[in-house]
Amino acid sequence: MSDVAVVGGGIIGLSIAWRLVERGRDVTVFDDGDEGAWHVAAGMLAPGGESAFEDPKLVRLMERSADLWPGFAAELGVDVGYDDTGTLSLAMTADDVAEAARVWTRQQLPLLRPTELRELEPALSPRVRAGVHSPRERQVDPRRVVAALREKLHDRIVPKRIESLSDVDATTVVVAAGCGTARLTGLPVRPVKGQVLRLRGEPGLLRHVLDATVDGRSVYVVPRRDGEIVVGATQEERTDRLVTAGGVYDLLRAAIELVPGLAELELAETTVGHRPGTPDNAPMIGFFGDGHIVAAGHHRNGILLAPVTAELVADLVVEGRECPDFDPRRF
Amino acid sequence: MSDVAVVGGGIIGLSIAWRLVERGRDVTVFDDGDEGAWHVAAGMLAPGGESAFEDPKLVRLMERSADLWPGFAAELGVDVGYDDTGTLSLAMTADDVAEAARVWTRQQLPLLRPTELRELEPALSPRVRAGVHSPRERQVDPRRVVAALREKLHDRIVPKRIESLSDVDATTVVVAAGCGTARLTGLPVRPVKGQVLRLRGEPGLLRHVLDATVDGRSVYVVPRRDGEIVVGATQEERTDRLVTAGGVYDLLRAAIELVPGLAELELAETTVGHRPGTPDNAPMIGFFGDGHIVAAGHHRNGILLAPVTAELVADLVVEGRECPDFDPRRF
Repeated sequence: MSDVAVVGGGIIGLSIAWRLVERGRDVTVFDDGDEGAWHVAAGMLAPGGESAFEDPKLVRLMERSADLWPGFAAELGVDVGYDDTGTLSLAMTADDVAEAARVWTRQQLPLLRPTELRELEPALSPRVRAGVHSPRERQVDPRRVVAALREKLHDRIVPKRIESLSDVDATTVVVAAGCGTARLTGLPVRPVKGQVLRLRGEPGLLRHVLDATVDGRSVYVVPRRDGEIVVGATQEERTDRLVTAGGVYDLLRAAIELVPGLAELELAETTVGHRPGTPDNAPMIGFFGDGHIVAAGHHRNGILLAPVTAELVADLVVEGRECPDFDPRRF
Repeated sequence: MSDVAVVGGGIIGLSIAWRLVERGRDVTVFDDGDEGAWHVAAGMLAPGGESAFEDPKLVRLMERSADLWPGFAAELGVDVGYDDTGTLSLAMTADDVAEAARVWTRQQLPLLRPTELRELEPALSPRVRAGVHSPRERQVDPRRVVAALREKLHDRIVPKRIESLSDVDATTVVVAAGCGTARLTGLPVRPVKGQVLRLRGEPGLLRHVLDATVDGRSVYVVPRRDGEIVVGATQEERTDRLVTAGGVYDLLRAAIELVPGLAELELAETTVGHRPGTPDNAPMIGFFGDGHIVAAGHHRNGILLAPVTAELVADLVVEGRECPDFDPRRF
């Protein structure tokens, strides 16, 4: 019998397992082999942009995790694509500027004019009207992070799909199964479908993460140093796994309007993932039954929140310290 | 030593081999295993639409092959998706109508008003201004045709890439290698890149082939009876095999403008092929050296022209009857 069993081999489950092993626990991770939301995610580490008007407790959690990321990435010991060039938040039309200005005002970042923006990113469309540079909104490559965590934990990962928690023999069971958490725990986690594209070209077209509103549509463009450019994401309250003509069209339209040169790049991958959303779209971190902990429901922020979630769960298991702000018993 | 060797296992080579076997010849087909242009092609059998202002000799050849198709498909003995519902040629903007009217006038087909068009295809956008119904412009599924031909010829197909015609031991060698023909023969065949999408949904959204001009851009939408819908095609003087963001975007934009409901469908496949083009974009069918025949360079019309090409090459091999209109020695 293990000391701790983690059900779920995605970025949350693996991060928790890693931190628990470091604190001396005997951990087994059960991984069903399905590619989780991390496989699709762009890896934007955006504590401010995506959640400006959300729960202040969630914003504090995100800021704390953003602060943990540099150390977390460094401790992994391999290149996981952690990049602190920062994000340009951009707006295209006058309406887009009006909408974005609400967030920018709150962030107290200086507004950049089109000429300043194009000095930072010469490939931007001349139609971009305004933007801000958010140096704290960074990126990491979630596929590299998961590969590095798997490498660290490889002898502790059991490839097995858990059908019922009663089949898991451990003193403490941590369910970090993303959208699969609902089935295992009965807790309210719903899948929020996202379609994401990966383009590929020579490195150097873009340097910053771009987070834009283009004719009323949100799009992000995340350039990796190897020439991959991630374009996302649709947000659909659907459970299917279909890449749709309309989803791909909407993403390409917004991305090409923003950076016309993207049209020349290879469309290398079209993917679908499901963000695990709770009723208030904040995560559940805590006990939900005797010896049963949940760490799931991170919605759009799973990559950003992985380091802090791992710490919080390790604090709970090792020290018994609870995290009342995100207690699953609030539902 | 075979009587006849056919170099190329695409729709042209296989059709030729089939007809020669039927006329009693001992035939071997060398197939390099690469998927040819047939694998990407939508299978529009359009003797009028695509070539209205081309060489009248070529138009006659296309009409002759269109007449052969019903018998050719029937003789294959399996369902190859031959469908005679016909094509709606459509125009969206006033400029699109003006351009399309040049072809429609020549075809002497009655102009249909928007209400008449939407009675035929209720899923059409209300923006479609005018169109004609071309009952003679039909479709077939090229992948099914090639599968049926392979089945008929399976013991005669040798999976082998031919590097030089001097390696081929046969009385007569027919080179039907599409874009690969240039390398083998020195004849002028250039690749013309085309990107094609395949969507998938429930059958019944569309019945006719749609051949449209949408805001100045040509697009075709070919619905199969099984729910597959082929959307094509870019036309690029490029040799690379990249599916590009811009290519996919342009196709989706035109197709979704034409039939908004396509947005809901799965984007099941993105493919690239190369049409084999000659300097005058007409095929080469005839001797180009001692015992060496070429049948290649069919450009956008390879599927349509397969039956007539097979007949012409069989006439040449069996009866010595030449085809001066498409003699390769014109270059």
